[in-house]
Amino acid sequence: MRVFHHFELSRCRLFLTFVAMLAPITVACSGLTARAQDGPLPSWNDGTAKQAIVEFVTATTKEGSATFVPPGERIATFDQDGTLWVEHPMYSQVIYCLERVPAVVAAKPELKEVEPFKTVLSGDREAIARLPMADLEKILAATLTGMTVDQFNAEAAKWLATAKDPRWRRPYTELTYQPMQEVLGYLRANGYKTYIVTGGGQDFVRVYSEAAYGIPPEQVVGTAGGTTYGYDKDGKPTLTKDPKLLLNDNDAGKPEGIHLMIGRRPVAAFGNSTGDKQMLEYTEAGEGPRLAMLVLHDDAEREYAYGPAQQLPETKVGAFTQELYDDAMKNGWVVISMKKDWKSIFAD
Amino acid sequence: MRVFHHFELSRCRLFLTFVAMLAPITVACSGLTARAQDGPLPSWNDGTAKQAIVEFVTATTKEGSATFVPPGERIATFDQDGTLWVEHPMYSQVIYCLERVPAVVAAKPELKEVEPFKTVLSGDREAIARLPMADLEKILAATLTGMTVDQFNAEAAKWLATAKDPRWRRPYTELTYQPMQEVLGYLRANGYKTYIVTGGGQDFVRVYSEAAYGIPPEQVVGTAGGTTYGYDKDGKPTLTKDPKLLLNDNDAGKPEGIHLMIGRRPVAAFGNSTGDKQMLEYTEAGEGPRLAMLVLHDDAEREYAYGPAQQLPETKVGAFTQELYDDAMKNGWVVISMKKDWKSIFAD
Repeated sequence: MRVFHHFELSRCRLFLTFVAMLAPITVACSGLTARAQDGPLPSWNDGTAKQAIVEFVTATTKEGSATFVPPGERIATFDQDGTLWVEHPMYSQVIYCLERVPAVVAAKPELKEVEPFKTVLSGDREAIARLPMADLEKILAATLTGMTVDQFNAEAAKWLATAKDPRWRRPYTELTYQPMQEVLGYLRANGYKTYIVTGGGQDFVRVYSEAAYGIPPEQVVGTAGGTTYGYDKDGKPTLTKDPKLLLNDNDAGKPEGIHLMIGRRPVAAFGNSTGDKQMLEYTEAGEGPRLAMLVLHDDAEREYAYGPAQQLPETKVGAFTQELYDDAMKNGWVVISMKKDWKSIFAD
Repeated sequence: MRVFHHFELSRCRLFLTFVAMLAPITVACSGLTARAQDGPLPSWNDGTAKQAIVEFVTATTKEGSATFVPPGERIATFDQDGTLWVEHPMYSQVIYCLERVPAVVAAKPELKEVEPFKTVLSGDREAIARLPMADLEKILAATLTGMTVDQFNAEAAKWLATAKDPRWRRPYTELTYQPMQEVLGYLRANGYKTYIVTGGGQDFVRVYSEAAYGIPPEQVVGTAGGTTYGYDKDGKPTLTKDPKLLLNDNDAGKPEGIHLMIGRRPVAAFGNSTGDKQMLEYTEAGEGPRLAMLVLHDDAEREYAYGPAQQLPETKVGAFTQELYDDAMKNGWVVISMKKDWKSIFAD
């Protein structure tokens, strides 16, 4: 059986090390938002990136102009992890899966002495980080499938309400980037329909997308497994989450997922890693004005710095490779510097 | 290889006989629309069905009432074939596939002497109707897959612009039911998001859904195959339609497809055949007020009469079985009589 995984697990393996080493530390959020400022993107410094967004919106919404895009075709897609919220040191969904293990074992005590559950329960973070890929897949399958959709939604919502990022000691859903929230709002105010197109689990992201971003569940495209329709003991219809992968929404899977779930080519797309490359290419290849942007994490003080572009440390969680940087330069994709373009990172 | 099919082919086989026997005949459309009449559903006669719709909308949109449904949760799903437009004597997409065969063979002349293409090209409608299931699957695969998404959209749009239903001698897209168009409009005017949830091909329906119903492509859920992202000879990104089934959007596949593509349970659902049963059950099983309706084709003069319920002739294209009728009575689903509830069938 091919167990489905909500992430590019090949990228996750190494970086569970980060989870293992992670100690709760506090870093002051130095962001100063400037809400009172005029204009549509108050948390953005003036510069190429802000200008590109404003010029694109102006060009595509001016009636009678040659670059006008009819409202129905105003589709903008956003990667989530690393583009709309913090993805380091590890995707929050992986943390969720690891933290769900005790509850899974409580419901099925026979797993207590079985690997990989035994190791996860031990709390030995170094041992957890050394678990082989097949074991990680077992953890994802056990914590993301086998329950009804309603049960999963309730479990994920409960975790999200209490879990906190150890660095900022704030709920993960508060660690969204204020400047990107402004882009979402600015586009929506100009008739754009905003979508999340994430390598993360579609069902997981849908639990919080409306509260965190004002994006309803039906506008979240993500890595998705199948469900099976059936009936519970009282004859009530149920949908049970299957360990069968329908859509791996990374790399080429992003435009494929956009076609499956939206059926139109976006006119604007935002990402931050190699997994977003094909989505940006596909967006750019359409007729008329296009906007393709990549968030570069170059702000170690206020958030994190990674990506070999510009001599930043390499990473496999949200890799921004030199090759992607070169593609961006060649294709006219705009790179957003968190350090230079953003006045603040988070909302106050 | 399991070739994907956009229909429940088991139901189609028998009824290709209808295609074979079909002679262009003209039947006067006796519908008298009553647009000048007051109220939200002018083409509906007063009765249980109209009353159920109006009462549901009133109950779910009255702020402060216990039955109020927040705007974001106002999801209404509609089967297409037989619920929103004519499905007899054969689904229009099957006609499309048969009529595409000459073009497919022109592009690949080696198919000319190969079955089932040879038989389809012969024009011998009785022989076409006798083709075995495996051959029908080959026709669907050859006409619905293997091309880019853009090519398919252009081909389908071209066919839809010129093809006509032989009975009414009108384009298929004009054979939508005026009373159901009014339901779509009435629900949307009251903050409902209207979706098509069809056993037909998602990509095919998306080509005309906006023009025919005001439903944008991203609000069409249907039987869907995968696509493969790649590049053409000029390096331009392409999405090619694969013969791989991702979602068979019939029966249990309807609630599964609704979860995959929308991620919320509808509060209102409309169908006309056994393939819609699970969608109606799933809709009904949610909390609060619900509306579940089934269109009964009991009007041989103005459209068609089929379904064993009420002694109508049996059919396998849009089967409304006695069992489904009994389920409707038991569950409080409202059966719409085309003959008694609708003043007119089509727009003038």
